[in-house]
Amino acid sequence: MRKEGKSDQEEGEENMAAWLVGLNTLKIQPFKLPPLGPHDVRVGMKAVGICGSDALRLADYVVKEPMVIGHECAGIIEETGSEVKDLVPGDRVALEPGIGCWRCDLCKEGRYNICPDMKFFGLPPFHGSLARQVKPINLHFTLDVHPAYLCFKLPDNVSLEEGALCEPLSVAVHACSRGNISPETNVLVMGAGPIALVTLLAARAFGAPRIVTVDVDGNRLSVAKELGADGVDIPKEVETICNVM
Amino acid sequence: MRKEGKSDQEEGEENMAAWLVGLNTLKIQPFKLPPLGPHDVRVGMKAVGICGSDALRLADYVVKEPMVIGHECAGIIEETGSEVKDLVPGDRVALEPGIGCWRCDLCKEGRYNICPDMKFFGLPPFHGSLARQVKPINLHFTLDVHPAYLCFKLPDNVSLEEGALCEPLSVAVHACSRGNISPETNVLVMGAGPIALVTLLAARAFGAPRIVTVDVDGNRLSVAKELGADGVDIPKEVETICNVM
Amino acid sequence: MRKEGKSDQEEGEENMAAWLVGLNTLKIQPFKLPPLGPHDVRVGMKAVGICGSDALRLADYVVKEPMVIGHECAGIIEETGSEVKDLVPGDRVALEPGIGCWRCDLCKEGRYNICPDMKFFGLPPFHGSLARQVKPINLHFTLDVHPAYLCFKLPDNVSLEEGALCEPLSVAVHACSRGNISPETNVLVMGAGPIALVTLLAARAFGAPRIVTVDVDGNRLSVAKELGADGVDIPKEVETICNVM
Amino acid sequence: MRKEGKSDQEEGEENMAAWLVGLNTLKIQPFKLPPLGPHDVRVGMKAVGICGSDALRLADYVVKEPMVIGHECAGIIEETGSEVKDLVPGDRVALEPGIGCWRCDLCKEGRYNICPDMKFFGLPPFHGSLARQVKPINLHFTLDVHPAYLCFKLPDNVSLEEGALCEPLSVAVHACSRGNISPETNVLVMGAGPIALVTLLAARAFGAPRIVTVDVDGNRLSVAKELGADGVDIPKEVETICNVM
Repeated sequence: MRKEGKSDQEEGEENMAAWLVGLNTLKIQPFKLPPLGPHDVRVGMKAVGICGSDALRLADYVVKEPMVIGHECAGIIEETGSEVKDLVPGDRVALEPGIGCWRCDLCKEGRYNICPDMKFFGLPPFHGSLARQVKPINLHFTLDVHPAYLCFKLPDNVSLEEGALCEPLSVAVHACSRGNISPETNVLVMGAGPIALVTLLAARAFGAPRIVTVDVDGNRLSVAKELGADGVDIPKEVETICNVM
Repeated sequence: MRKEGKSDQEEGEENMAAWLVGLNTLKIQPFKLPPLGPHDVRVGMKAVGICGSDALRLADYVVKEPMVIGHECAGIIEETGSEVKDLVPGDRVALEPGIGCWRCDLCKEGRYNICPDMKFFGLPPFHGSLARQVKPINLHFTLDVHPAYLCFKLPDNVSLEEGALCEPLSVAVHACSRGNISPETNVLVMGAGPIALVTLLAARAFGAPRIVTVDVDGNRLSVAKELGADGVDIPKEVETICNVM
Repeated sequence: MRKEGKSDQEEGEENMAAWLVGLNTLKIQPFKLPPLGPHDVRVGMKAVGICGSDALRLADYVVKEPMVIGHECAGIIEETGSEVKDLVPGDRVALEPGIGCWRCDLCKEGRYNICPDMKFFGLPPFHGSLARQVKPINLHFTLDVHPAYLCFKLPDNVSLEEGALCEPLSVAVHACSRGNISPETNVLVMGAGPIALVTLLAARAFGAPRIVTVDVDGNRLSVAKELGADGVDIPKEVETICNVM
Repeated sequence: MRKEGKSDQEEGEENMAAWLVGLNTLKIQPFKLPPLGPHDVRVGMKAVGICGSDALRLADYVVKEPMVIGHECAGIIEETGSEVKDLVPGDRVALEPGIGCWRCDLCKEGRYNICPDMKFFGLPPFHGSLARQVKPINLHFTLDVHPAYLCFKLPDNVSLEEGALCEPLSVAVHACSRGNISPETNVLVMGAGPIALVTLLAARAFGAPRIVTVDVDGNRLSVAKELGADGVDIPKEVETICNVM
């Protein structure tokens, strides 16, 4: 899909990315993009979240080959393929990070989010989208080509940083949607990590009248409380186990 | 169902109610209650709403026999039948005003709200629940016996006046529930009368991101706007028709 | 509900029923019926199935008080209450054996079949409908009063014996309905007892393309095979356990 | 998708197809296939149905450019692309005739059958699959390349002619599936043309207890009757209109 056309990268400014090159080691290095296909767009990355799964890879992933990490991202369209009609350069977009195979039964049924052959940003062997325009380290923009149908235009009142969080937020929205959360449903959220917290926020947006959050970490629970959890709890037995450990 | 036991009314204070006795004519008159059955409760009415359907009856209903109107109500339990376990005297309750026949297919399917043989407060030939403790006219409490399973205990933070509005609110909640309203659904509310306004509020509670209200009356639309409608509109053609009329 | 009116039984022929009076002991004894209410019908029982649950009660039930058993039944309407409109004497009917309380949440939601306060034929302390007109022992008709809304008129091509089996069949139809069985669903039936066999037949009627039945009893499986099971199986491990036992 | 690899056609036997070249005019002419992509298969067509939509095109379609028609088809795999894993040469397959764009919202939701950008056999400007191995006119095999994921292996007990009818049958199965047809649903089929008749058969397979078919043509209704319609009817008014016309 990315094999036709030619990449402006080849002639233009050099693209840089954050490469995971070894245990706990990230390096800013050049990242050559594939050519732009007729249905692709090139996106200048402006904001990229660091997910727990990225951090895990940083911590103990056995790096066989250096790879670019990152998958929660938003940016600005820089170039569009010949068949792209809905996006133009300058559009601010959030990127859906996984490309389904469109051949398996799950894709055909509209459940491409769990396609077993998905190409997902930063999931080996596919490079990710991390560390573009991370200002503290003065990184050059990293550019990326991506199918236009997975780039969603942001409304004016949504910042690029918020756009980058559309990906984790969509997990929470999907969970609430599948769970038929409404003002007629009380909700229990197990854990108070980042995904649990966006789920708490999503459940609130779906009108859940009572949301209780459980975790073994009092600090995390106090954040849940701030974000509107109606009740928080540290289960006694689990606490004991955790203390022992 | 109300035929066994004996009514305290016969011996106690006289019950008063608002009777529709003729065109545009309400009178406060005694209202004798049926005896209390084993599954019934006697409720002292504390707040009763006046619905459009009550007003219509007041305006042009051909009164064959005088009747008590009103069906949006809340009150305090005064006496319970011998088999009632979940309610005790003193409980503050909202009353569901319709009693299904529990014999037709709709009742058996759980859709008793549209039972064709429903006995509904204030729907002839059944008396209603209006005008108990309407302070301005210093009415005595009107007491009512009602099946316990149609009396819903109010939480402490819900007033009796709010409790009386549970009935119209439930129409809105049911509509949003059937329509699967969620943060993924935009909503159009046709009209800005009382039921439309509670529907607007309910849709908001269900998380609808955008709710547009349409009416031919600018004053009603300004209330919708105050209650949080994202957009309001008076359709041009309808306006013309209304002006002509 | 059965307290008003008077029973013809008091004056007419004596009603007989099969009473469980002790361990493994059934006796044919008189059974006095309650009076006929306005929504009740009196049914002359013509065919009553013996369910596994009846047999279990016969085998090891601690009989505190003698009781009439049986709940799978069909018969002929003999008398109708004053408010009954859909049935007339002479109608052949199948009887739904459980009467919901119509007060709990389950009843209100249309799931009265699992009402925790159900009055069910032959489930203590409620008498059942067994042994009326069981010809081999020349039993007199047993008469029963029952709510009209739980009596379903049989089409001409359905015999009374088949009508008596509507109750177990309805279990199978309900299961297939809840399981969304269709020509797009393969079905596994665990066990090959009577209910499993009607479920097999119902799944076939729902169009299931492949139905496999599993049991530890080869004889039962051969019946399943005759009734159209596409595959039958005795699990190896279970067989071993059974042999040991 | 069909642009990489090279076609065996270029070197092998010449492929022939039925071209619609003008009003009511079909001609058997060579049809050059595109090269085989990595996920494509080349299929030797063995049976192709003639749909009403094909006939309509034959009757009055304004032919701008000659085109191959036909879309109800089955055949035998002759060659597979490098990435095809589930099919091998010799496999008998039915072909799904429409290729979704996999970029629009409908495709992403699993409703690719109504993708507005679908490439569909014989729907201009896409060539169809008609007239391959139509024995009476001794046509050479027509070969076709098609995505492997739209080729469905036929069980041994399904002939290639039956396989060609999977496409119209799937319309009927989808209709019954969406309509939740079951032994609890009576069905009315409007019309008794080919699609109506497969719908009648499908509804029967879904267990519908009663299926009534309506048409203005008595001959068609007699076919419906033979196929098991429980009732057939020619509406009176429509009949009059038809006679007048």
